[in-house]
Amino acid sequence: MSENRVEGRNAVLEAFRAGTTVEKLLVQDGLQDGVINTIKREAKKTDCQIRFVKKELLDQMSETGTHQGVIAYIASYEYAELDDLFKKAEEKGEAPFFIFLDDIEDPHNLGAIIRTANLAGAHGVVIPKNRAVGLTPTVARTSAGALHYTPVCRVTNLVRTMEECKERGMWFACADMDGTVMYDLNLKGSIGLVIGNEGNGVSRLVKQNCDMVASIPMAGDIDSLNASVATGVLAFEIVRQRRG
Amino acid sequence: MSENRVEGRNAVLEAFRAGTTVEKLLVQDGLQDGVINTIKREAKKTDCQIRFVKKELLDQMSETGTHQGVIAYIASYEYAELDDLFKKAEEKGEAPFFIFLDDIEDPHNLGAIIRTANLAGAHGVVIPKNRAVGLTPTVARTSAGALHYTPVCRVTNLVRTMEECKERGMWFACADMDGTVMYDLNLKGSIGLVIGNEGNGVSRLVKQNCDMVASIPMAGDIDSLNASVATGVLAFEIVRQRRG
Repeated sequence: MSENRVEGRNAVLEAFRAGTTVEKLLVQDGLQDGVINTIKREAKKTDCQIRFVKKELLDQMSETGTHQGVIAYIASYEYAELDDLFKKAEEKGEAPFFIFLDDIEDPHNLGAIIRTANLAGAHGVVIPKNRAVGLTPTVARTSAGALHYTPVCRVTNLVRTMEECKERGMWFACADMDGTVMYDLNLKGSIGLVIGNEGNGVSRLVKQNCDMVASIPMAGDIDSLNASVATGVLAFEIVRQRRG
Repeated sequence: MSENRVEGRNAVLEAFRAGTTVEKLLVQDGLQDGVINTIKREAKKTDCQIRFVKKELLDQMSETGTHQGVIAYIASYEYAELDDLFKKAEEKGEAPFFIFLDDIEDPHNLGAIIRTANLAGAHGVVIPKNRAVGLTPTVARTSAGALHYTPVCRVTNLVRTMEECKERGMWFACADMDGTVMYDLNLKGSIGLVIGNEGNGVSRLVKQNCDMVASIPMAGDIDSLNASVATGVLAFEIVRQRRG
């Protein structure tokens, strides 16, 4: 992507800690608290250019509207290759666990899902090129730094990528209401968890290509969980089964 | 609360379906699609006043910025009493399961948590009066209609309310990173799940009053899950244990 800004304290600090190349750091003039000082200290360890500027300038530069006094310009978010995700699993000596997103539109959801993927130990996230949201500054910020650790692969055709992963031994479970309760499925081993669009769910063709349909047992009066919450519940069911 | 607007298609439709008294409905002039027609049909079953207005007026009236062509004015969101939550559990013949929020500040998180509470079968949500966010239109919209079904009780002193619930047989588990892995805890029976503030976690005094500290097993590089995702993962661990 062309956009290369990281905004907000946690996101900027994580960028430095993850060893991301920050080219320029804008800090609000006069800010002196602990987190800002830590960011400045981290920045000084690198050859990043630090500029102290007025809050008004940051407000003007900010794309998320919540810069919290810091904006970092990084070399650029890089999408990973599918192989990078498999390599990450191999390095950790774990069966691959990827999260496939079938057209997530809300950048807050994408960010929260990358954050969840990181903490559930998934080796990466796969998103489609068309329609769906890509790696914007809002996604980076909502991911709370996870974007610097968890590779995101953007593919032209989600079904074709799923087929490629199947050939490499991956099983696919998509989230839908008419499936088998997740506790009754075997989600161990090499697994691709597929999450559908916020409004329309998983598309027909993607669903047809899944080996299992996993349902969260719902007790309530309304239709469905928020997409990032559903991803969290399903991802941690996979964590539970892998531990057991 | 004084605010009494519901914005967005799902939220408005759910308000009608839940039998909420809508006093006035504003619909964008010329909109004719399925959901809008369903809303109009539901509205006509009641004695609600329907007005067709220009998009510009809706844009101007909207507080969430995403009215999607409909704004409904309802009698007002009502906070529930603690007794209502216990009654709800009793009516269902279930052990009480409440979610206590120790200062959630982001209305999107509160809305997503009420949505999750509904679908996980919790009997209500308890929030503190001070500092934390209350039931705003953004909360109602993000709850995707759950606010019409899941009672929210607002209390002056969270610890005092916890003590009252303890006297009525409830056990408390708060979410924190230094606790026992949630799978190893007994979360069956009458339970209060306590979720802390987005930045600071559960406050000291609230934590001291909990019987258990529950941890989600984290595998990643960053610090913590989004508050609403963490609530989802923990709430559905309670669901899993209750089923088993």
